[in-house]
Amino acid sequence: MGASRPASVVLRPIGVVRSPYRTRTEAPRQGWFRPEVLSRVEVFSPYVKALKDLEGFSHLIIIYYCHLARPWQPLITTPWDTRLHGLFATRSPDRPNPLGLCVVELVELQGNVLVVRGLDALDGSPVLDIKPYLPTVDAFPNASMGWLEGRMPLR
Amino acid sequence: MGASRPASVVLRPIGVVRSPYRTRTEAPRQGWFRPEVLSRVEVFSPYVKALKDLEGFSHLIIIYYCHLARPWQPLITTPWDTRLHGLFATRSPDRPNPLGLCVVELVELQGNVLVVRGLDALDGSPVLDIKPYLPTVDAFPNASMGWLEGRMPLR
Repeated sequence: MGASRPASVVLRPIGVVRSPYRTRTEAPRQGWFRPEVLSRVEVFSPYVKALKDLEGFSHLIIIYYCHLARPWQPLITTPWDTRLHGLFATRSPDRPNPLGLCVVELVELQGNVLVVRGLDALDGSPVLDIKPYLPTVDAFPNASMGWLEGRMPLR
Repeated sequence: MGASRPASVVLRPIGVVRSPYRTRTEAPRQGWFRPEVLSRVEVFSPYVKALKDLEGFSHLIIIYYCHLARPWQPLITTPWDTRLHGLFATRSPDRPNPLGLCVVELVELQGNVLVVRGLDALDGSPVLDIKPYLPTVDAFPNASMGWLEGRMPLR
């Protein structure tokens, strides 16, 4: 175990989500269930220079903080069936570390603002990281979905 | 802007990576460039119950903390060409928030240990989240790769 392994990790938001989803009930279960909705990722000024070359990527990975998450429980029910499932086998926002992750389509880059499609984050969500989506290592279209197989709508 | 938007976010590791990659130079640029290598994600006891039902998923998303990351710079070079690129258009670990993300194959679940393929994390990396990979919303095999197109090896 590395001596430098931290007991906790402190992160600072690099931006904020502007979205039409203002409450938990307004947000879709996955961003891609509402493909007509566009959201904005507003990147704070110290980080804008680091957006260079992003416009060439059709898709991005957005990691954000679910600031309205509730305390987590190890076993939960979901909208997809009535059984209890292990939390890590779900995409519930109510996690030990409430990190949200969405693969989004980059519609437009306007200065410090990314206009994106497919984001389910609530308005005001702190953005922690932006990564380019690389189909060579990120796309596994034939992956099996365990208990969710056949239960979740396709995009 | 929500009144509850935090200036910083504190996360606690839910587990730790055990991997043959002990230094930055030993680790591959992407985990899938070394598909023969297996790593272990050891989940700490308060979180083991939440692993229920994970074994049905062929692939998982692992979010970890790059504990040996260096200070970030907005423009960097990478192994793939000689030009400067915006940091957020790269997968460098040296980010404002050094979060690592890998889509891995779940080879075996043994109690609190996930044996996985495709993880590039260094030994001792704190694990922050485990999510099931959902091809319906996570797989975009035709996404375009911007400046990386044709430069990064296929898996």
